[in-house]
Amino acid sequence: MTIQQAKDLRSWIEVTNESDFPLFNLPLGVFSIDDETARCGTRIGDTAIDLGGMQQLGYFSDLDLPDDIFVQETLNDFISLGKNTHRNWRKRMMEIFDKDNGSLRNNAAHRQEVLHPVSEIQMMMPVFVQDYTDFYSSREHATNVGIMFRGKENALMPNWLHIPVGYHGRSSSIVVSGVDIHRPKGQQLPADAETPVFGPSKMMDFELEMAFITTDGKPMGHRITAEEAEDYIFGMVVFNDWSARDIQKWEYVPLGPFLGKNFGSSISPWIVTLDALDIFRCASPEQNPKPLPYLQTAGEHTFDINLEVTIAPKGENDTTVCRSNFKYLYWNMAQQLAHHTVNGCNINAGDMMASGTISGPTEDSFGSMLELCWKGTKPIPMKDGSERKFLQDHDTVIMKAHCEKEGFRLGFGEVRSTIIPAIND
Amino acid sequence: MTIQQAKDLRSWIEVTNESDFPLFNLPLGVFSIDDETARCGTRIGDTAIDLGGMQQLGYFSDLDLPDDIFVQETLNDFISLGKNTHRNWRKRMMEIFDKDNGSLRNNAAHRQEVLHPVSEIQMMMPVFVQDYTDFYSSREHATNVGIMFRGKENALMPNWLHIPVGYHGRSSSIVVSGVDIHRPKGQQLPADAETPVFGPSKMMDFELEMAFITTDGKPMGHRITAEEAEDYIFGMVVFNDWSARDIQKWEYVPLGPFLGKNFGSSISPWIVTLDALDIFRCASPEQNPKPLPYLQTAGEHTFDINLEVTIAPKGENDTTVCRSNFKYLYWNMAQQLAHHTVNGCNINAGDMMASGTISGPTEDSFGSMLELCWKGTKPIPMKDGSERKFLQDHDTVIMKAHCEKEGFRLGFGEVRSTIIPAIND
Repeated sequence: MTIQQAKDLRSWIEVTNESDFPLFNLPLGVFSIDDETARCGTRIGDTAIDLGGMQQLGYFSDLDLPDDIFVQETLNDFISLGKNTHRNWRKRMMEIFDKDNGSLRNNAAHRQEVLHPVSEIQMMMPVFVQDYTDFYSSREHATNVGIMFRGKENALMPNWLHIPVGYHGRSSSIVVSGVDIHRPKGQQLPADAETPVFGPSKMMDFELEMAFITTDGKPMGHRITAEEAEDYIFGMVVFNDWSARDIQKWEYVPLGPFLGKNFGSSISPWIVTLDALDIFRCASPEQNPKPLPYLQTAGEHTFDINLEVTIAPKGENDTTVCRSNFKYLYWNMAQQLAHHTVNGCNINAGDMMASGTISGPTEDSFGSMLELCWKGTKPIPMKDGSERKFLQDHDTVIMKAHCEKEGFRLGFGEVRSTIIPAIND
Repeated sequence: MTIQQAKDLRSWIEVTNESDFPLFNLPLGVFSIDDETARCGTRIGDTAIDLGGMQQLGYFSDLDLPDDIFVQETLNDFISLGKNTHRNWRKRMMEIFDKDNGSLRNNAAHRQEVLHPVSEIQMMMPVFVQDYTDFYSSREHATNVGIMFRGKENALMPNWLHIPVGYHGRSSSIVVSGVDIHRPKGQQLPADAETPVFGPSKMMDFELEMAFITTDGKPMGHRITAEEAEDYIFGMVVFNDWSARDIQKWEYVPLGPFLGKNFGSSISPWIVTLDALDIFRCASPEQNPKPLPYLQTAGEHTFDINLEVTIAPKGENDTTVCRSNFKYLYWNMAQQLAHHTVNGCNINAGDMMASGTISGPTEDSFGSMLELCWKGTKPIPMKDGSERKFLQDHDTVIMKAHCEKEGFRLGFGEVRSTIIPAIND
């Protein structure tokens, strides 16, 4: 499929030029209406589509889908069906919603049952995540953090150019856009102190990331090669890896981040499939030294996805603090997944693997407050006259992601969450 | 309950003095017979008891349990019912299996239906684990590793005496006793080399640990205090945290262990409840400096559990290489769980939290080959005349745990798994 073909695909549902959700996108999500039963769905323009309803009305009868595959609280079972099924479903959807197809368009009762304005739905977690991994794949981010903590000469660790470094994170506290995040409490070592103190974090930060969601993998002991890795990636979301820098700094040596991260991570609700992103493939940064053979990939395995982060203080105008791009990442997703499984580690449908903070080459493209304010030395001015070194209570952080090429746009929508005060318990 | 009362509790099912499973134990597990349906059960002596069958026959009719709560592939739903229900179930079981109770004992058809020799069952994973955390709570282990890698003066990290250090691990690859583990492949940096090589790990190790399994916790943002923490701990298993030292060493700075660990972890199949362990409480090592208030516990919060590790080369006599005890751990489980949730991190029924390697004060109580052989400098002689610095293919590692006091014994059985060669794919 070319950009022009994607652009030519027009739906009878209205899609504005600024929308992230043309017919070519067809992201998957889970929503409820008036807090009733969860249902799996997709979105075209500002219309949410109830896929369980469509199946019951017979629109997928030629697809051989399991009964009620979309009448579920998560997409895990659908994801487990594999890429062939996903593609058949996608093709069928493009037919039904094509501007020239009247089957659903001309059936008012059916439309009434399965189409809902997005303003009337509540988005939920799209998948149940058993395992969540966070990579560290931006050379710019790793270098910035390295310079701040170890100086310019030793910025990158010796393993960084050989390994897509990653670590395991907490699944239970991954929440969907719109869920407030309590400021975490924890141990911090004040500057020049020898013993730690306890209290709410004073260095609350975001990390601009994207995450991919896997399909089922292979049995334990078997690896997924870099060449076949994308067959095991269902789609992507925008990922805010909330970080409490003071807690993280005191705890992370030698076993890595723990309470500085696991109080919450927030994701955008619609999973954009790799099939929808395919037309936005582009080249990754050159890799030198050449990775070991099991990490080598040929062709284009990253995507040109524009990213931005905005901070909205309570009741005030928002300020965009960062513009970056997914394509800046040094290690691509195929390399990350090949590395993750090369030791025989098994994966399951719904696993989430985040990219690590996506920082670009310029100062306004850094993906965290830590880097943007350079460890607190360069506060960011906000539109309301205040400034930020780190996040304050009631600040809302909004991350958006979209692709745009030859006048054709497709995106992820946003992940938007507010920091609220720590609970006094 | 006292030891004597536990000892006086006699079942009409035979229990030898050497058995880990007297009537007082009543561990929970999941098993199948001839690979048919999974069922939740318990064990007395060498008899496995099908709890789903018992419920269907009416033996729990006064307990107000949900229908088919034991006809499940995991114990998660039962664990979610909470401690009151668990205790009522436990009390009822002690009545039914008391030597003077004839209700089941005298019903041959019922006995036939629910009692099975353990030799005829296959144990399965007892819980679905969404999140797995590994602590690092043995001062002896942290010190040993510190001396080996950083020298005696800087052995313990500055945070270690203030924080029950922990990190997130991989849930998907936790398997039950009896499942073979493939030797992992991965990047290693040979001594004096500047660039890594790829291949099967040459430094395959075990780590002797125990893990606790949680009940459901509180909503995100709320903490579980150290005082109430044990109410959220269902029970414990023996845990082998397989470790590939060469892979771990090259990858772990700065974000912690990843592929050196996540190829597999093995657990003993029967969960021994905290209620069964209660009579074996004992004091923990003194903590100096005193932890911050949120980590302080009064009274006895650890357990006197004897541990041993045996290596059995293929077809040869086994050699016991380590004898340790759970009580050596510096940080207790209440402190670990209070720490884990103090930032608002939420937990769920079935979460697994391992202790970290349990090394004792003497050289024969170290809980890993890395320590026992002191980085390869002191190979362990095996009964068959060979020696080991690390594990070889086809070595079976057996970890056992039991409590014993005033002639009364109660235990966990074992976790037994064999290292098999890496797959060539």
